[in-house]
Amino acid sequence: MNANTYIEENRERFLEELFALLRIPSISTDSQYAGDVRKAAEMIKQRLEEAGVDFAEIHETPLHPIVYAEKQVDASLPTVLVYGHYDVQPPDPLALWTSPPFEPTIKDEKIYARGSSDDKGQMYMHIKAMETMQALGEVPCNIKFLIEGEEEIGSDNLDNFVEAQQEKLKADVVLISDTSIIANDTPSITAGVRGMSYIEIELTGPNRDLHSGTYGGGVANPINVLTDIISSLHDEHRRISIPGFYEDVLELNENERSEMARIPFDEAAYKDSLGVKEVMGEDGFTTLERTSSRPTLDVNGIWGGYTGEGAKTVIASKASAKISMRLVPNQDPEKITKLFMEHLQKIVPPSVSIKFIPHHGGYPALTPIDSVAFQAASRAFEEVWGKTPIPKREGGSIPIVAMFEKVLGIKTVLMGFGLDSDSIHSPDEHYGIFNYFQGIETITQFYKHYQEMMKR
Amino acid sequence: MNANTYIEENRERFLEELFALLRIPSISTDSQYAGDVRKAAEMIKQRLEEAGVDFAEIHETPLHPIVYAEKQVDASLPTVLVYGHYDVQPPDPLALWTSPPFEPTIKDEKIYARGSSDDKGQMYMHIKAMETMQALGEVPCNIKFLIEGEEEIGSDNLDNFVEAQQEKLKADVVLISDTSIIANDTPSITAGVRGMSYIEIELTGPNRDLHSGTYGGGVANPINVLTDIISSLHDEHRRISIPGFYEDVLELNENERSEMARIPFDEAAYKDSLGVKEVMGEDGFTTLERTSSRPTLDVNGIWGGYTGEGAKTVIASKASAKISMRLVPNQDPEKITKLFMEHLQKIVPPSVSIKFIPHHGGYPALTPIDSVAFQAASRAFEEVWGKTPIPKREGGSIPIVAMFEKVLGIKTVLMGFGLDSDSIHSPDEHYGIFNYFQGIETITQFYKHYQEMMKR
Repeated sequence: MNANTYIEENRERFLEELFALLRIPSISTDSQYAGDVRKAAEMIKQRLEEAGVDFAEIHETPLHPIVYAEKQVDASLPTVLVYGHYDVQPPDPLALWTSPPFEPTIKDEKIYARGSSDDKGQMYMHIKAMETMQALGEVPCNIKFLIEGEEEIGSDNLDNFVEAQQEKLKADVVLISDTSIIANDTPSITAGVRGMSYIEIELTGPNRDLHSGTYGGGVANPINVLTDIISSLHDEHRRISIPGFYEDVLELNENERSEMARIPFDEAAYKDSLGVKEVMGEDGFTTLERTSSRPTLDVNGIWGGYTGEGAKTVIASKASAKISMRLVPNQDPEKITKLFMEHLQKIVPPSVSIKFIPHHGGYPALTPIDSVAFQAASRAFEEVWGKTPIPKREGGSIPIVAMFEKVLGIKTVLMGFGLDSDSIHSPDEHYGIFNYFQGIETITQFYKHYQEMMKR
Repeated sequence: MNANTYIEENRERFLEELFALLRIPSISTDSQYAGDVRKAAEMIKQRLEEAGVDFAEIHETPLHPIVYAEKQVDASLPTVLVYGHYDVQPPDPLALWTSPPFEPTIKDEKIYARGSSDDKGQMYMHIKAMETMQALGEVPCNIKFLIEGEEEIGSDNLDNFVEAQQEKLKADVVLISDTSIIANDTPSITAGVRGMSYIEIELTGPNRDLHSGTYGGGVANPINVLTDIISSLHDEHRRISIPGFYEDVLELNENERSEMARIPFDEAAYKDSLGVKEVMGEDGFTTLERTSSRPTLDVNGIWGGYTGEGAKTVIASKASAKISMRLVPNQDPEKITKLFMEHLQKIVPPSVSIKFIPHHGGYPALTPIDSVAFQAASRAFEEVWGKTPIPKREGGSIPIVAMFEKVLGIKTVLMGFGLDSDSIHSPDEHYGIFNYFQGIETITQFYKHYQEMMKR
């Protein structure tokens, strides 16, 4: 029996198990779901044990638990550290889901549920690949599993755990499935990810909400001031106007730009799928360049004043925004956060005061495409998908890639199986059933090729 | 017995009755309080009957009821149409109230409750003035009461009612207490109010919320676009940049400006009471001018994206804002609303679409200070407060003033007794007990002087 046959025979159960995990609302950012986050961790521990690891354990942290497991085959074999996360983003805005976010629903051969693609579905493929190899009696490498519950809120406790457990986590390569391929007929492997700086700001004007008739025109309105500040953060070329922001940006060279131009990308279809008439971004770059290799600044949330039904004539005392910047090599999130805060402190008018609440950030990373592990991943794709995967840089952030390299000295292979259209972090997140099963098989093939190529 | 004595003797009951009215959360903008709005109307009808009117009735409308009552003394006497409203603004943000908004609480000789000043407290003074005159056997004028429940949402159904009931509402003057005096030792009568145009806008970019890593930099973020648009609505002199906006503005002449400069105003105390370091407004005008005689544009509410705890890396599909403009004579709210929408339609980039939801507007108004009614009000103040009241223009909007003039051909006297510091539309709205009782007495004196001066 080969991997493909085993996976086919266990198809229904593999789906059912994933559904059980997707039903748990393990939203790490919201403290009222802490119990569900723990439930998810316990389920993963149990499934790892059933899949045939030597042991699985739950490590407590000050917030959400980390699941760790090991399968030691032979000390002479290479060791792969599998990383994934079982926490998910909040499902808001709830009203826009066409099926409940925590009741997985199959439509058009896709699994609709929060976390189906990011990252429960992709992480769980690794556990099922483990089970498959174990069942077939051929586990080609030693495997360590590190599955955390705080990825969506910055992995602070994972960082501490990795710092403290360097010996335990020793491995030859880190393997992560938390990225996407270009299309189901155009497989790809992610060779770089952006970093992030995320800051919440709160402006305070008058010490209380005011009647806009009595006071309108007399005092600064914090919401109007907020819009002035945010608007000023981009210049007319859609470049970010924070002094020093671009200082450390590694510019794409001509070779990289022409490589990127070869990636199949249908801008008309892209606009169509998003329902927009125009793409928009930094002048002088293509959409693929803008979303993968250029830094950005986006408001992720804004609020202030009366937001209920009807009209209220109020000048709010406070106005707030959550602002994130995606960073590229070699930008440093701590430096960028500092530049951002210094700049805003400088431009904020004396009529309001500003408060900063920095959220989690993360370093950008590039992964080497000439490594044995990358080449093994490439062969695994070729074998299962029948095509050579294209190396590509991705716009999202996986800060632990830079962290693993810094703390453990290990490079990462980002072998993800999602699609950009999976609506991760959005209503109606989904993951292709095809991608789920194809991914499980590709992972089993990765171990085989990695073991063979490491022998040479 | 005189009015003052009667009011003193019934002090406790006059307060208790007002408290009972303040306990009803008659929030007109929120449909879930429709039952409470009706309860308030019924209570007012009953109190009017007890105060000695000939009859009081409730008129149904498509939304909230209108209370109407009449006291006909003698066809040869002048007739006064008293207008007031029993609906209130929502109490949000609830957390900032130091006592519950619908449980009236006395602190420092002030009544803290939503509606205590705007307008239940001020409206109820007229019912108690009616009772007082009736009890003393001297009602000097015919009185009609018109008390509505939709002032805070634009008085649409009042407009229709007045149109339909022109005969019934015939009167010599309209009397309204829904404005403020300069200070308890500096009485004033409002000689002008601003109008208003209020529009909600909703921008839509991508057809769903997107992951800011995958899409950041590639498509227009509707929140960022919203801040660009709002920020562009003021120029560097804090003038509103909508073409044609100032076209019909009646500029203050030198005489009016020097009159206004004589109004006692302590800018340091103003800033201190609001907790702001600087005042801010249109270049070239004083704070009193800016807040009474100049048009303004304020964002009253803004929202979009993730506004919960923690961080979410999303590019929202939609972003919204509620924007109101205070207008001055001779601006036309319908024209301004049209100019606003045309301008925004023009500047919105093709990457997003815009939807307009116009809320209620209202015409600005000036009231003649040389009229008999204004002079009678002035004498009433002199008698009760021992000082000649200063005529002043106020920043708020009372659109029914322009409507009464247009439909019924009747001028209004704005004899309000609140203070700008009453925090109307804000948490901890309050109304001075002094102002309440002083107001009741002043109203009884108005009728006496008005009747006498109309005889001549």
